[in-house]
Amino acid sequence: MDPTPPAFPITPRNRVRRRPQRGHYDHETVFRVLDAAMLCHIAYVIDGQPYCTPTAFWREGDHLYWHGSSASRMLRAEAKGIPVCLTVTHMDAIVLARCGFNHSINYRAVMAFGHAAPVAGTEAKLRAMDAFIDRFFPGRAAALRPPSAQEIKATMLVGMRIEDASAKIRDVPVHDDEADYAHPVWTELVPLATVLGTPEPCPRQAPGVTRTAGGMDAYRPGRRLDEVMAETAAAYAARPAGD
Amino acid sequence: MDPTPPAFPITPRNRVRRRPQRGHYDHETVFRVLDAAMLCHIAYVIDGQPYCTPTAFWREGDHLYWHGSSASRMLRAEAKGIPVCLTVTHMDAIVLARCGFNHSINYRAVMAFGHAAPVAGTEAKLRAMDAFIDRFFPGRAAALRPPSAQEIKATMLVGMRIEDASAKIRDVPVHDDEADYAHPVWTELVPLATVLGTPEPCPRQAPGVTRTAGGMDAYRPGRRLDEVMAETAAAYAARPAGD
Repeated sequence: MDPTPPAFPITPRNRVRRRPQRGHYDHETVFRVLDAAMLCHIAYVIDGQPYCTPTAFWREGDHLYWHGSSASRMLRAEAKGIPVCLTVTHMDAIVLARCGFNHSINYRAVMAFGHAAPVAGTEAKLRAMDAFIDRFFPGRAAALRPPSAQEIKATMLVGMRIEDASAKIRDVPVHDDEADYAHPVWTELVPLATVLGTPEPCPRQAPGVTRTAGGMDAYRPGRRLDEVMAETAAAYAARPAGD
Repeated sequence: MDPTPPAFPITPRNRVRRRPQRGHYDHETVFRVLDAAMLCHIAYVIDGQPYCTPTAFWREGDHLYWHGSSASRMLRAEAKGIPVCLTVTHMDAIVLARCGFNHSINYRAVMAFGHAAPVAGTEAKLRAMDAFIDRFFPGRAAALRPPSAQEIKATMLVGMRIEDASAKIRDVPVHDDEADYAHPVWTELVPLATVLGTPEPCPRQAPGVTRTAGGMDAYRPGRRLDEVMAETAAAYAARPAGD
């Protein structure tokens, strides 16, 4: 039994410098923050100019995948992969205080570093296109009209192995310097959560079709998106072998 | 009267290439998306390696400001400013469909380009530190214990003029290829919103202090964060001259 849980190497680029006590490098913590998200922001460079592109993404083991449209200019230029930083952030609370300096945000964030390269080959692309659906809506891909040759061609999927990554988590209640507690200003913590609203069914639903079997069981009004994402990620990771 | 509303120049870096009909370059649209957010993601480059850092930010006219801790290594190296891309994304809905290709996300996003440089000088820093509070909590800075010399020294604020920017907005209901509407799978649009929870007051509130006069009127449980941000941004922009 290995007593050391799997972790990413600590390198100059992923080491948490400011408030290092908030840094985590173990796979479990990093994956948990990633899996609770649908959206990430990806930084990449073209001719010295940085770009920051938001996109949906998903994780399989130590690999991350996303749509490649925005990055396609540079991916076409460098087939070997280009360096990227993929960041996920959950804002959990606004934390007020009695001085400006102690105002803060509670959050869970991951920065993951690697080299992005296109998913190549029709079979691999088809598998990735199904994964993109099934990771968010378990079992839905098989219920859909299958991708056409034209759609496969028009879809660019990009993947990267996480070479190193770090999670940074702040979960601290209101606090102030001891001398400031007498200062007469109201302070509180304001929780934040991204939640699902009431679904708006397509008005052209096919006759007799119900909401079952579309992979949408986890999507219930009022639920937190991060909880739905964690639940569907776990269902996807536990899919039967060969799927 | 100028019939052309103010807009950012369209350049190779901000031009919306994919789905150009979703691109907007006018100040009003770009500022509206920015002002509805508390959090942004900033891409920057050190020695060819891109980084993507989440942070709270605010806007004044065509300038954006944020905390500079993460960028300080490179800002120390280049006093003239380093190229950055500041991105804001609001996820508004998950849009399902009858084929994988037509699944999508409704969103409002802005990519803003410029050169980031530290806010220099004690007076300018003090003004920026107050703005950082008052933009989110109108009038709160004056109610706080003022910053100490040590806090001013320890705070790094970074600003950039928006040289060019684009907004990209998708607001489309479920749609499918005409032939697919008969395909028997449920489809719907799932609205998403980041909302405020029930505030958790500091248990060490000073005696007799109430929630008034702390700039927190807009922060009510159940409200959407983007609406609170838009409202407080408008209050900050309308502050009396000289403040």
